[in-house]
Amino acid sequence: MSRVYNFSAGPAALPEPVLRKAAAEMLDWCGSGQSVMEMSHRGPDYMSIHAQAQQDLRDLLNIPDSYKILFLQGGGTTQFEMVPINLLRGKGKADYVITGEWSKRAAQEARAFCQVNVVADSANAKGQHTFVPKQSDWKLKKDAAYVHVCTNETLGGVEYHWTPDTGKVPLVADMSSHILSKQIDVSKYGLIYAGAQKNIGPAGLVLVIVREDLIGHAVPTPPPMFNYKVHADHDSMLNTPPTYSIYMAGLVFQWLKQQGGVAEMEKRNIQKANLLYDALDRLPFYSTKVNKGDRSRMNVPFTLPDARLDEAFLAGAKERGMVQLKGHRLIGGMRASIYNAMPLSGVETLVAYLNEFAQKNG
Amino acid sequence: MSRVYNFSAGPAALPEPVLRKAAAEMLDWCGSGQSVMEMSHRGPDYMSIHAQAQQDLRDLLNIPDSYKILFLQGGGTTQFEMVPINLLRGKGKADYVITGEWSKRAAQEARAFCQVNVVADSANAKGQHTFVPKQSDWKLKKDAAYVHVCTNETLGGVEYHWTPDTGKVPLVADMSSHILSKQIDVSKYGLIYAGAQKNIGPAGLVLVIVREDLIGHAVPTPPPMFNYKVHADHDSMLNTPPTYSIYMAGLVFQWLKQQGGVAEMEKRNIQKANLLYDALDRLPFYSTKVNKGDRSRMNVPFTLPDARLDEAFLAGAKERGMVQLKGHRLIGGMRASIYNAMPLSGVETLVAYLNEFAQKNG
Repeated sequence: MSRVYNFSAGPAALPEPVLRKAAAEMLDWCGSGQSVMEMSHRGPDYMSIHAQAQQDLRDLLNIPDSYKILFLQGGGTTQFEMVPINLLRGKGKADYVITGEWSKRAAQEARAFCQVNVVADSANAKGQHTFVPKQSDWKLKKDAAYVHVCTNETLGGVEYHWTPDTGKVPLVADMSSHILSKQIDVSKYGLIYAGAQKNIGPAGLVLVIVREDLIGHAVPTPPPMFNYKVHADHDSMLNTPPTYSIYMAGLVFQWLKQQGGVAEMEKRNIQKANLLYDALDRLPFYSTKVNKGDRSRMNVPFTLPDARLDEAFLAGAKERGMVQLKGHRLIGGMRASIYNAMPLSGVETLVAYLNEFAQKNG
Repeated sequence: MSRVYNFSAGPAALPEPVLRKAAAEMLDWCGSGQSVMEMSHRGPDYMSIHAQAQQDLRDLLNIPDSYKILFLQGGGTTQFEMVPINLLRGKGKADYVITGEWSKRAAQEARAFCQVNVVADSANAKGQHTFVPKQSDWKLKKDAAYVHVCTNETLGGVEYHWTPDTGKVPLVADMSSHILSKQIDVSKYGLIYAGAQKNIGPAGLVLVIVREDLIGHAVPTPPPMFNYKVHADHDSMLNTPPTYSIYMAGLVFQWLKQQGGVAEMEKRNIQKANLLYDALDRLPFYSTKVNKGDRSRMNVPFTLPDARLDEAFLAGAKERGMVQLKGHRLIGGMRASIYNAMPLSGVETLVAYLNEFAQKNG
């Protein structure tokens, strides 16, 4: 089969030029006679890849010098634990805003370490999340160690299009599914984390961007692998890092720069999302649940009028070269994930199919 | 540059046919129109890769059905912590045998969780490790929760060529740098772990092979990422696993099967190691420290008569297409790592160069 339009929520599509470069360099990276997979992580070749990936990410997001960039393992799920272990600083309580499954899980995990204050929860009677609660409705505690948000919920398709103001209390954000998709002001956050497998690179890598003054206050004797200070002191080389994943992430960062950086991505992502939501709004055949102002530009869930049509919809999509449109098992229906690597032509193909399928079955 | 002979201790050389296959499949795995990096870990394509890798590893090492195979993240270093967290089972003490830097670090990390009994330590007055203490000299405790060994020490080049008998106390082995290089009787072990970046695949993946009755006794409320039961219950899919690393490991497992399995690898590894050690023994120009009976077939450290010759030795090696021969900073001198993927021709090239260099400089 030729390349498909891959709407997977993660692991997700990567830019084709990046994959081509990785394939071309598989047996010989830059005349070294080795694959990046085969290099010692302490050697100059890999060290240059590691440093370049950090610098490119710093450039792309304008990360201030007072923030460390860590390349860690264990995914966002491990950050659910590392955040309280490292950021509680003896305070014993933290604020969590719940806007979907991922922020709910983050809060659940934190309960093993501290008192979790749910300062806002957008769940309706059915447990569905369709909006971001306004900050004026949040019940923030002044003595919380931090405020945790998930700024894009992959399952429900709810996204923050504004930045919370938590004053002196550090703001912690799980940005796994929309990092690098739009411009952000990193200085408004104490810590940002993101699993790589959506907008960055292969699964097995998680980015942490953390303000330096928040490092070094972990609970007594945490496992070293759970201590940001240990990782920061070792420049993410406490042990062998996931070198190939970092190399792939580095290729994605370079591709982003060539495309015009995050500002250009944001422009394209707005264009792609508008095209898709406009079609869903125009065709009464399809339903969406999320409030218009809180719609995710990355993950677009929608339903057909009858779930018995789902299989035919997916089969027709596959015939047209579109895969991974099935919704998450907790939500049902369809979901189109349209990260940075999804070209406009993929969304156009989907919109044409939405029209066609509605006409035939409407 | 054409492909080099890469003697890195890890991340280390991979079989060239595996790299060629991965490069060929980078944009389209088996007609799916996607790279393995881009596949949902819950989809049938990736699930088949995951299951096949497990089955192939089970076949290669004759792993009994009563053992679980886990594909985890965080490297061997995370296992230094997960082993005590999961295997102490309220016993409060564990036995550690120290034969080099890695077993020493494992014991150090365990001290945060329990009383560590060092039942044998081969360090000499200079802190060097050159042999495996005979089991008759070990001071094992009957009430220890487990006995931990590192069966191949990558830095010093010390390897167990026999299997300890610890009776009813589970034997735990860090086999990171020689797993799949020789036949083992898995049933003699309670738990085996191995970072992938030497004999298996890319860094960022660690294998755990654990007897089922040892699962499910973790300390109260460990972080879920540190709990073998949670990972076993989720078939290593508690969160997104390092899918591409597992795919690469799976390609290596299939290559091993095509070569004739672990028995054939063991034969070749003995041949390669004998060739190299014979040359080092024959040429008085070079010195080795490790007791002959405990020499590693994977990592061969040696020194020149004068460290001022080291740079010239490494430069000449590079000219001849051999890289990563510099010894570990803690040990100095040279080190040739000759894992499964190192062909006999690489060792022959090295031996020819050892002769040549000794003649010129001896």
